[in-house]
Amino acid sequence: MATVQLFVPILDLGGTFVFAISGAVAAVNRRLDIFGILVLSFVTGNFGGIARDVLIGAVPPAALSEIRYLLVSVIAGLITFFWYSGVDRLRSPVLLFDAAGLAFFAVAGAQKAIEFGLSPVMAALLGMLTGIGGGVTRDVLLAEIPHVLRSDLYAVAALAGASIVVVGDMLGISYEVSALIGGALCFGLRFMAIRHGWNLPIAHLSAQARAGTDPSNDIKSN
Amino acid sequence: MATVQLFVPILDLGGTFVFAISGAVAAVNRRLDIFGILVLSFVTGNFGGIARDVLIGAVPPAALSEIRYLLVSVIAGLITFFWYSGVDRLRSPVLLFDAAGLAFFAVAGAQKAIEFGLSPVMAALLGMLTGIGGGVTRDVLLAEIPHVLRSDLYAVAALAGASIVVVGDMLGISYEVSALIGGALCFGLRFMAIRHGWNLPIAHLSAQARAGTDPSNDIKSN
Amino acid sequence: MATVQLFVPILDLGGTFVFAISGAVAAVNRRLDIFGILVLSFVTGNFGGIARDVLIGAVPPAALSEIRYLLVSVIAGLITFFWYSGVDRLRSPVLLFDAAGLAFFAVAGAQKAIEFGLSPVMAALLGMLTGIGGGVTRDVLLAEIPHVLRSDLYAVAALAGASIVVVGDMLGISYEVSALIGGALCFGLRFMAIRHGWNLPIAHLSAQARAGTDPSNDIKSN
Repeated sequence: MATVQLFVPILDLGGTFVFAISGAVAAVNRRLDIFGILVLSFVTGNFGGIARDVLIGAVPPAALSEIRYLLVSVIAGLITFFWYSGVDRLRSPVLLFDAAGLAFFAVAGAQKAIEFGLSPVMAALLGMLTGIGGGVTRDVLLAEIPHVLRSDLYAVAALAGASIVVVGDMLGISYEVSALIGGALCFGLRFMAIRHGWNLPIAHLSAQARAGTDPSNDIKSN
Repeated sequence: MATVQLFVPILDLGGTFVFAISGAVAAVNRRLDIFGILVLSFVTGNFGGIARDVLIGAVPPAALSEIRYLLVSVIAGLITFFWYSGVDRLRSPVLLFDAAGLAFFAVAGAQKAIEFGLSPVMAALLGMLTGIGGGVTRDVLLAEIPHVLRSDLYAVAALAGASIVVVGDMLGISYEVSALIGGALCFGLRFMAIRHGWNLPIAHLSAQARAGTDPSNDIKSN
Repeated sequence: MATVQLFVPILDLGGTFVFAISGAVAAVNRRLDIFGILVLSFVTGNFGGIARDVLIGAVPPAALSEIRYLLVSVIAGLITFFWYSGVDRLRSPVLLFDAAGLAFFAVAGAQKAIEFGLSPVMAALLGMLTGIGGGVTRDVLLAEIPHVLRSDLYAVAALAGASIVVVGDMLGISYEVSALIGGALCFGLRFMAIRHGWNLPIAHLSAQARAGTDPSNDIKSN
């Protein structure tokens, strides 16, 4: 139990830290200034949780009421700013820790949604949102289509981990156990997706239809 | 009365469904994967209502606390994914049903804002937001300027319909009556705009000023 | 005291007005229609405060419950629409008034966050968010990287002003005094940044690292 007590904040802040690194790297790559880098760090590290908290009515969000999330994000941003080439070389460990952070965020996000009375399916989706929301906001701020919408098993891994927690809650299994299983599943899926380049399918189109699939073909009535 | 009881959920879920189709089609046209398609479906179908609920303090939003909105969005996404060419052929009926969905969303959104105590003008605007919010979020996620900001009478039709509900409420007319009139007005305006290519004016500029209107001319102090 | 009572709403609405002008000008420059121009006016003038209010749980946000913010934004949009070349000629006074609006928004935003019980650091950040949120949302809707993330001392000036209010609150100094000092500091920093082209540093990279800093180098796991 004491191990869990120690483990949880490490994953929580570690996840925030690694997410923040990915935001800061993206900001440096687009030549944003130091302020832009710190904003991207904070947003990428925390916006998943903030979006979840606003949606379930837990305001002010934890990321705004507890200073340590800001602190960790700023440190990640400053390290990237002053030591970009070093961060760049740590690409593989960052990806691995990012998978751990995703697992933790998804699992903890689902649990919080359950505590706020959301239905099982929605709690699982909010767990997923907690995991991917930061990256989505980072990409929106960079005027790009969110990476998570077009690639590998990122969101699905988060959804799987969150679902285990929700099912566990319905079966009366203790949170510690289901969080461990859910987190391991999420981490494992991500790890395999990175290692083997697993991806989700895109729509199968006939050659004719494919010729027609470009933005001008949208049904954009609104 | 029994007819109304039946009619309302049909329009509600029907509107969500058709909005979700437009999101899924846009996602397929940008080659997003199946997860991206389902996200765009859900967001386009529900984010107008979610934004309204967050702004008026009705959290968790209805679209997150009732499972049927998610279900309908996912079905729309899957249909588009597996049967893109078929959906593409149904372009005209989709546009028509979309106009009906818009009318319903605008009218119901305004009514909900009134119930939460917003002033008449703001209730009308929140009705409009309910109608257009999904499409705006879809376009932001696709890194494009929202279509509704630059074209035909979409938002104005929603605003007109919502305004009727608000005026009706001030005059003490029953919601059933004003919703019917407001919805018909919104639907009618949209129908005419589609049929006759009606558009709103853009700023009239002298040739000299026009030469100057490009993004580099912004007053972007912030 | 009576002067303060008069001064506050002038700065408040004046700030909204000038921010709205910058949104409307950006909308005209991208050839949006009149509706798009009015939306950009309202969003740029009010979204900083709306985001703050949603995050601290002050819903419905003041900008939605009090009609005057909408009114001022619409007027700014209409003036820009009908009189674009005139607005364009007033560039310098607009920048100056914008600095005053920023100072007011940052200071008032921090004070509101303190009143809602946020910690000092977060209150300062929410003050900054109140000042820059409108411009960020404007740029996101225009599918561009927010200007404030890549240029001059805009956000830092807002943060400095908001911080003075927070420190003043901790020291027991009356809001009137700290708001005046904080506002003057923010305005002064902005004024100097505009006059002397002050900018924040971007990351220092070796020639080799610079060759590698492009979006393809992101650590985008999510």
